Amino acid sequence: MKNTNLPVIAFDADDTLWPNEPYFREAEKDMMKILTPYFRGGDLMEHLYQQEIKNLHIFGYGAKGFTLSMIESAIELSEGTIPGSEIQKIIDLGKQIMTYPIELLEGVEDTLITLREHRLVLITKGDLFDQESKIARSGLANHFDAVEIVSEKDDETYEKLLKRHKIKPENFWMIGNSLKSDVLPIARIGGTGVHIPYESTWQHEQVTTDAAMKETYHELSSIRELPSLIAKVCDSK
Amino acid sequence: MKNTNLPVIAFDADDTLWPNEPYFREAEKDMMKILTPYFRGGDLMEHLYQQEIKNLHIFGYGAKGFTLSMIESAIELSEGTIPGSEIQKIIDLGKQIMTYPIELLEGVEDTLITLREHRLVLITKGDLFDQESKIARSGLANHFDAVEIVSEKDDETYEKLLKRHKIKPENFWMIGNSLKSDVLPIARIGGTGVHIPYESTWQHEQVTTDAAMKETYHELSSIRELPSLIAKVCDSK
Repeated sequence: MKNTNLPVIAFDADDTLWPNEPYFREAEKDMMKILTPYFRGGDLMEHLYQQEIKNLHIFGYGAKGFTLSMIESAIELSEGTIPGSEIQKIIDLGKQIMTYPIELLEGVEDTLITLREHRLVLITKGDLFDQESKIARSGLANHFDAVEIVSEKDDETYEKLLKRHKIKPENFWMIGNSLKSDVLPIARIGGTGVHIPYESTWQHEQVTTDAAMKETYHELSSIRELPSLIAKVCDSK
Repeated sequence: MKNTNLPVIAFDADDTLWPNEPYFREAEKDMMKILTPYFRGGDLMEHLYQQEIKNLHIFGYGAKGFTLSMIESAIELSEGTIPGSEIQKIIDLGKQIMTYPIELLEGVEDTLITLREHRLVLITKGDLFDQESKIARSGLANHFDAVEIVSEKDDETYEKLLKRHKIKPENFWMIGNSLKSDVLPIARIGGTGVHIPYESTWQHEQVTTDAAMKETYHELSSIRELPSLIAKVCDSK
């Protein structure tokens, strides 16, 4: 049974509940190997990143847009000479990202069980189908009272979600590995953000925060520390 | 002001409110022209369709998966020889599908205005980002009380949506061009389905219906006929 006096706890998924970023970085490395014979100069990684950003307004976030951007980078860097057989290898790298087995990060399932009296929500951005597939593969779906897949995680998105779910910001916690997408928007709209950094963060998700902003969110080194933080903050109110 | 005694009216988007399928078919034709010099035999259109169906469990529906499937078809049908410069043309066809200007089908906006006292919902499947972009480009967003983008349109999806929005099936109408995705699931769960056929239907959306099933939904030739159908059915209850 859910205790509606307790705050609602929302979690990011990729790199908060399971590793995701390493699969993208691994695919990039494999793409570099494919590209080496066709390479005419330039910074490969930087080129791919610029391609992704350039395409973001057409493809949005997620594995399919990433795959299409990898292909475009390969074509441009090889000056159009890379053959279809090599591009098939890049598509296969993309498919690996869309089908990898989900292994939960340490402590995730225990923490969700510990917090089971709270309303728990999962909020993730990216490809709708791909995110649903990952949630299914994770086996965690039943822990959550609601799952929200969004195309962008900004103040406006969170405000709409809270309104739709009739949650007051002061009663809302969001836990994630991205300061930019999971933590700072929540702090700005009056909720409680908890940052749990992951080993690697995509360049686009990196932000510099000033000292003042740092006061407004919590930072943990493991999800295992979350239940006691929630208890402490709720007790002090 | 919404009159909550009136039924909730939900609309499909692609090929119900604006043309979509013709852009996909146009892209296929253009791809065939690109492929002609590399073509080693086989039924091009059928090959692409099979590729799409084969990839559906990884990519889901939508323009990005369609683009990746076009590329895979081109690679396979050219036995890997098609160069990157030609594949770039296929990606550009995909990008056209993701950015085409939305022109509303005849009568759409008038009908939404006529039905403004009903709660109006838009339910569409495909790429999250791409569908949001089309809704924004359509200028129709303000007519709808809720927008739902889903990865599949089956009985389960609709049942979940109705539960989430606290709508009883007998108080729910769904209007769309696809019998398979918009009309028959609604009829099965006890709502009212209205079929407005569009000039072309993707092979995967085609179904044969037996006579009995035909009794359970309405068929209109234009969205303009919808308000009077709703009035007639509601009056007879």
